[in-house]
Amino acid sequence: MTGATFEEIAIVGIGLIGSSLARAAKETGAASKVSLYDRSEAVRDTASSLGLGDVSDSLAETCRSADCVLLCVPVGAIEETMRDIAPHLKPGAIMTDVGSVKESALNAMQAHCPAHVHLIPGHPIAGTEKSGPKAGFASLFRGAWHILTPIPQQDEAYNGAVDRLAAFWERLGARVEIMDAARHDRVLAITSHLPHLIAYNIVSTAYDMESVGEGEVVKYSAGGFRDFTRIAASDPTMWRDVFLNNKDAVLETLGRFSEDLAALQRAIRWGDGDMLMREFERARGIRKAIIEAGQDTDETNFGRNAPDKKD
Amino acid sequence: MTGATFEEIAIVGIGLIGSSLARAAKETGAASKVSLYDRSEAVRDTASSLGLGDVSDSLAETCRSADCVLLCVPVGAIEETMRDIAPHLKPGAIMTDVGSVKESALNAMQAHCPAHVHLIPGHPIAGTEKSGPKAGFASLFRGAWHILTPIPQQDEAYNGAVDRLAAFWERLGARVEIMDAARHDRVLAITSHLPHLIAYNIVSTAYDMESVGEGEVVKYSAGGFRDFTRIAASDPTMWRDVFLNNKDAVLETLGRFSEDLAALQRAIRWGDGDMLMREFERARGIRKAIIEAGQDTDETNFGRNAPDKKD
Ligand SMILES: NC(=O)c1ccc[n+]([C@@H]2O[C@H](COP(=O)([O-])OP(=O)(O)OC[C@H]3O[C@@H](n4cnc5c(N)ncnc54)[C@H](OP(=O)(O)O)[C@@H]3O)[C@@H](O)[C@H]2O)c1
Ligand SMILES: NC(=O)c1ccc[n+]([C@@H]2O[C@H](COP(=O)([O-])OP(=O)(O)OC[C@H]3O[C@@H](n4cnc5c(N)ncnc54)[C@H](OP(=O)(O)O)[C@@H]3O)[C@@H](O)[C@H]2O)c1
Repeated sequence: MTGATFEEIAIVGIGLIGSSLARAAKETGAASKVSLYDRSEAVRDTASSLGLGDVSDSLAETCRSADCVLLCVPVGAIEETMRDIAPHLKPGAIMTDVGSVKESALNAMQAHCPAHVHLIPGHPIAGTEKSGPKAGFASLFRGAWHILTPIPQQDEAYNGAVDRLAAFWERLGARVEIMDAARHDRVLAITSHLPHLIAYNIVSTAYDMESVGEGEVVKYSAGGFRDFTRIAASDPTMWRDVFLNNKDAVLETLGRFSEDLAALQRAIRWGDGDMLMREFERARGIRKAIIEAGQDTDETNFGRNAPDKKD
Repeated sequence: MTGATFEEIAIVGIGLIGSSLARAAKETGAASKVSLYDRSEAVRDTASSLGLGDVSDSLAETCRSADCVLLCVPVGAIEETMRDIAPHLKPGAIMTDVGSVKESALNAMQAHCPAHVHLIPGHPIAGTEKSGPKAGFASLFRGAWHILTPIPQQDEAYNGAVDRLAAFWERLGARVEIMDAARHDRVLAITSHLPHLIAYNIVSTAYDMESVGEGEVVKYSAGGFRDFTRIAASDPTMWRDVFLNNKDAVLETLGRFSEDLAALQRAIRWGDGDMLMREFERARGIRKAIIEAGQDTDETNFGRNAPDKKD
């Protein structure tokens, strides 16, 4: 594709996602100009010295002439930030976000977004356990899904804006999917939010086992525990906001999880090996499907101790 | 080190661990001769064609002249296999295993092991989600801990045998730790057994969410879920045996986990963001400790989508 998808984009919040977006937009040429704002002066300075784009210390200036404003702050900060951005948006601009919960993000943005702007929430299914502007990289979205949750039954201009925003994300290497916000929140509750909650929880449990020292937990973590610590190292603020803002779907999913766990517990208590076998065998199938769908690597142990790595 | 630690070792069970042992023993010269046996003819043929050592279709012949016999079968098969091996062990030989549970493995072996043999149970904290002789590789144990759980208060000859077995594992690249069997089982319950149980369980829960299709679970698994599916792809028989044989420690740990999870659930229900922040913040610390201890890679996302990988 030649020519930029957007003349100018504005990125508000220069963390992992915001800084990756800036890099990707520049590298792919998806935007001719990338304007950036962060509430923190230190982060703005870092962004400048990393050459991420035109960093400004005025939110108004960053957003004023943007064709598309991408809000890249934790879900709990969306409403407040949107309120500050709203007066500066130009007519016909696209307003989007990258928040991990979509119904509350939509409501928070809708409360302040002017009518002359196309509000189209979004969520990239791409990320890492690291945060901040230095953690970002241009290829983060490549091959990943990007979910857009547009407002239903809008006019033609709106639908055109959705197409343009989709084209922008595709330009960054993402595959775009359109979904209802409430459905997004139910799907992500199981594929992302519950796994993070469980990971945080098992780390807590390990911490508090007074019969096993923390040193031993660390020392023997290669037995499986360390896999959980990766996602439990994710940004606490981001995840607090996810759980507070997707409460119903997370509690529903968690209820299912606890029921299933009680059944496994019972099988262990009563020595029901057949039940354990049945459950464990199904799990292999889903791993296979994930690898076949290109959603994970089949490298042994994520490639951490594959033969070639240590030899 | 020059000269082999053992003139001849016998490996019974040529799966991931057994075949890795054979490869490592040959590559490092830790044993001059590697004899192998597996109950399955197909696996014996594979082992022969992979050149893993002297494969025999007689268990008796495999063990008869071995200085050290390494039992590499699932924990639930240890007693039966030990009974078959027992009559063929030479006086002064070392009998060990690699089972993931140690108290029951000790009891199962002790029931049949002749008095003229040094019985020293062991467990390498190294493995992958793959099984079978083709999945093994020589460097599996390199840098990993190997836990030995010798029988306490034995004679000098026994202690000498423990030293020799430790030297053998160190030769393969492992770091050896001596531990009481019951303590091993409590420590591994939290660092390995519970994580696997939780991983299996979350995959089950995802399967059964009728409001979210399996296709969507697979498609959006990059949000965190896929991290769990790796260890949930581990061998079902091995893991059934682990849970049936480490019942008390697993149930105790699981009880703690469920209590902690109930507290998080409550915090979500009542919107207690401070409690969530506190819990999530501690988790980062343990990840840091694991990386500093060299027990995991700090590569972003386990290196799966690090900048260089996809660029
Ligand atoms: N990380 C992931 O894996 C991932 C994946 C998909 C979507 N997301 C979503 O992407 C968004 C950003 O996450 P991230 O990973 O980029 O986080 P991050 O690296 O921690 O960056 C967060 C950014 O938000 C800003 N911020 C935090 N609190 C704020 C507040 N109260 N008011 C204004 N700005 C505030 C931060 O400003 P400072 O510079 O002052 O700290 C920083 O610029 C979140 O909504 C998250 O749900 C994350
Ligand atoms: N995988 C890991 O991550 C890991 C890590 C540390 C310790 N361990 C321990 O290592 C041991 C072996 O695990 P692995 O990963 O090597 O498993 P694997 O690749 O599945 O191999 C298992 C081996 O045990 C044999 N076997 C299974 N059931 C048997 C029975 N009833 N009687 C006799 N032999 C039987 C198998 O024979 P066939 O060839 O006929 O199937 C095969 O040779 C287990 O005790 C496990 O707890 C595993």
